[in-house]
Amino acid sequence: MASLSYQAFYPIRCSSTRDNPDPHKQPMIKINGNSTTIKVDGLSQSTGAESTRTMVASMAENGCVTKEQSRQNIPTKKQLVDPFRHGLIIEAGVGYRQIVVIRSYEVGADKTATLESIHNLLQETALNHVWMSGLLGDGFGATHGMMRNNLIWVITRMQVQIDSYPIWGEIVEIDTWVGASGKNGMRRDWLIRSHTTGHVFARATRHDTWVMMNRETRRLSKVPDEVRAEISPWFINKKAIQEDVPEKIIKLNDNAKYVNSGLKPKRSDLDMNHHVNNVKYVRWMLETIPDQFLESHQLSNIILEYRRECGSSDVVQSLCEPDEDGNLEGVQEDTDINLLNGYSLASKSINGHGLLGFSDKWPLRKSGYCYFGDVELVVGKTTMGHGKGRLEESIALDDGRKEKNLFE
Amino acid sequence: MASLSYQAFYPIRCSSTRDNPDPHKQPMIKINGNSTTIKVDGLSQSTGAESTRTMVASMAENGCVTKEQSRQNIPTKKQLVDPFRHGLIIEAGVGYRQIVVIRSYEVGADKTATLESIHNLLQETALNHVWMSGLLGDGFGATHGMMRNNLIWVITRMQVQIDSYPIWGEIVEIDTWVGASGKNGMRRDWLIRSHTTGHVFARATRHDTWVMMNRETRRLSKVPDEVRAEISPWFINKKAIQEDVPEKIIKLNDNAKYVNSGLKPKRSDLDMNHHVNNVKYVRWMLETIPDQFLESHQLSNIILEYRRECGSSDVVQSLCEPDEDGNLEGVQEDTDINLLNGYSLASKSINGHGLLGFSDKWPLRKSGYCYFGDVELVVGKTTMGHGKGRLEESIALDDGRKEKNLFE
Repeated sequence: MASLSYQAFYPIRCSSTRDNPDPHKQPMIKINGNSTTIKVDGLSQSTGAESTRTMVASMAENGCVTKEQSRQNIPTKKQLVDPFRHGLIIEAGVGYRQIVVIRSYEVGADKTATLESIHNLLQETALNHVWMSGLLGDGFGATHGMMRNNLIWVITRMQVQIDSYPIWGEIVEIDTWVGASGKNGMRRDWLIRSHTTGHVFARATRHDTWVMMNRETRRLSKVPDEVRAEISPWFINKKAIQEDVPEKIIKLNDNAKYVNSGLKPKRSDLDMNHHVNNVKYVRWMLETIPDQFLESHQLSNIILEYRRECGSSDVVQSLCEPDEDGNLEGVQEDTDINLLNGYSLASKSINGHGLLGFSDKWPLRKSGYCYFGDVELVVGKTTMGHGKGRLEESIALDDGRKEKNLFE
Repeated sequence: MASLSYQAFYPIRCSSTRDNPDPHKQPMIKINGNSTTIKVDGLSQSTGAESTRTMVASMAENGCVTKEQSRQNIPTKKQLVDPFRHGLIIEAGVGYRQIVVIRSYEVGADKTATLESIHNLLQETALNHVWMSGLLGDGFGATHGMMRNNLIWVITRMQVQIDSYPIWGEIVEIDTWVGASGKNGMRRDWLIRSHTTGHVFARATRHDTWVMMNRETRRLSKVPDEVRAEISPWFINKKAIQEDVPEKIIKLNDNAKYVNSGLKPKRSDLDMNHHVNNVKYVRWMLETIPDQFLESHQLSNIILEYRRECGSSDVVQSLCEPDEDGNLEGVQEDTDINLLNGYSLASKSINGHGLLGFSDKWPLRKSGYCYFGDVELVVGKTTMGHGKGRLEESIALDDGRKEKNLFE
């Protein structure tokens, strides 16, 4: 096996300045950009920047690493292969590929990977890409230059297109790379394929914006040259999803057909930023779609636009409205759905004509749901296809692509 | 790299008899054993046995595999190394070791692996052990012999002892093996260590009982010789946790100090058995412990005794009572806890004396919480230690053990 293997290094002891900031004390940050006002501290992919910046500065001054850093072993130089993560640098030195096996707890009752698991794997591979680059600070995806400048990532838009879902035990390879998005942003793309056949399961694109956390003005600032110089060599011009004009997502209000209210973030929903991880929104959204619909369909596309952070004390509601192509009237009449406080389904309706009759009426890949939780939290649009038959068909679509890589 | 690598094989097409049983139609199964009556269809680690048995019988008769099986590529013979999972057979051919890197979404806000993630990894490595053995049917850990005999696993007791928690990015190795537990059962043990230093993070033991799903009598039956012959060669006499007499777990009722009621299983809580996965209980239990307590402590021991299944339509409550060593009176008085419908904390109390003052009073490793959700669902006991300081101390405990393995 060709290897630039993961070097273990041992701690040179120094006093750690690491602290655990109280999540309840995180300041709310408003950023005034050109056209919109966005609160960003929940959607950011940053670290608790102040404490981390202090630590890194301290490290640099003292030439030592903390115990935690020694255990994490974050590389300080670009690394081409990570045997423990099954990761390697591709795309002429700037892209990243990771092979993962779909785990037992990443699949749902139908043995296919859940949408939440797919989002988790996208997040994981993105972070590991930065990890391999040698640019990762101690934060949640921020580079050293970003940390020195108090910069954080803010996700603005995420789209995932899923042709078919990998199943339990399936070996999957996830490619990811970055490119420019406008003047002040970055896009990250992913491609998820079967490692065995090359069959494409899913494509995804995320748009991030750099945001300068100026504690005085709290304004959006220009990206410093230092950071641009750090990141732009990794940019390539290649898109996983060919986007035309971004699809407009309508706003919903309390009159939406399905309302799941009273959603409270739990401790386990918080990530290393002490805020609700953006993947949790996906779970909340899917929970608002009636069960019997999801049992006969699989989501084929989801677009999310992040508008505001969600802190641990927020109470969220998730709204769902079928678009004009969709017809959920039958479901509403046939089942026992409580439109105000979530929904519960009478078992008679599930055993009766509610389930299958309904799925046949739903046009493949034409209908959608729209959601948002609280007015400005996140808006999204999903497209549902006939799911259950597609798992069996997915291998028939294989194109036989088979690339050699270092792990075979 | 020494390798008995993962062989890809391609489908010989045959008509699949796979179906997706409606989870709402799963029969409730009562099993009358020697002394207790247990409903098992939620706690089982089985597949939806009937449909899978039919499929495997069909496969055997036709000498072909389904597309799904081709994609999963479950080995039919014992396999010594699985490069994609970083798995290998150890312990003279009967134990299993897997190396995993703690992922970004497996850690909490403090960057340490969550208890739920640890349980997930225990489940995953147990299944992969069976996977490597060549004995795995299509089900959730059931062997071919068990499937032919309509046998399922039922977890009866699980204990996890955690000395310290691995952190984001840390490379961890998990060893697991099985042994006899009484006449009609099996125990499975795990050891979770730092791959770099050998430092032991956690130990775990699970006791399973074989249960015969006789559709007519629904009684507990003797383990057939066929299954005993299949599994017993894998037994070794080695314990990760030295247990004396199992600690008795008291029952709680609605008078418990903390009550988290109205917990409804979500679609995402269901596993491949179409029932609530047992790991979800852990989440529900932890959510009943007041946040500010968990923020200053880490769980060092959890014992779970499974009494009954949880179906998708059950409404669960989780109860929590400090034991006689514990004193939560201060918390109740100082904070805004709603004892009937979950709890919410006034931010003033967190910023005040509720948090740290309280943690100092709590005796390290002596106090516990007890829970159950619904009367017969699961009972458990946790022991909490001072957590937040321990992360920093864990490397000081390293013993420098460093074993060579195939992935270096």
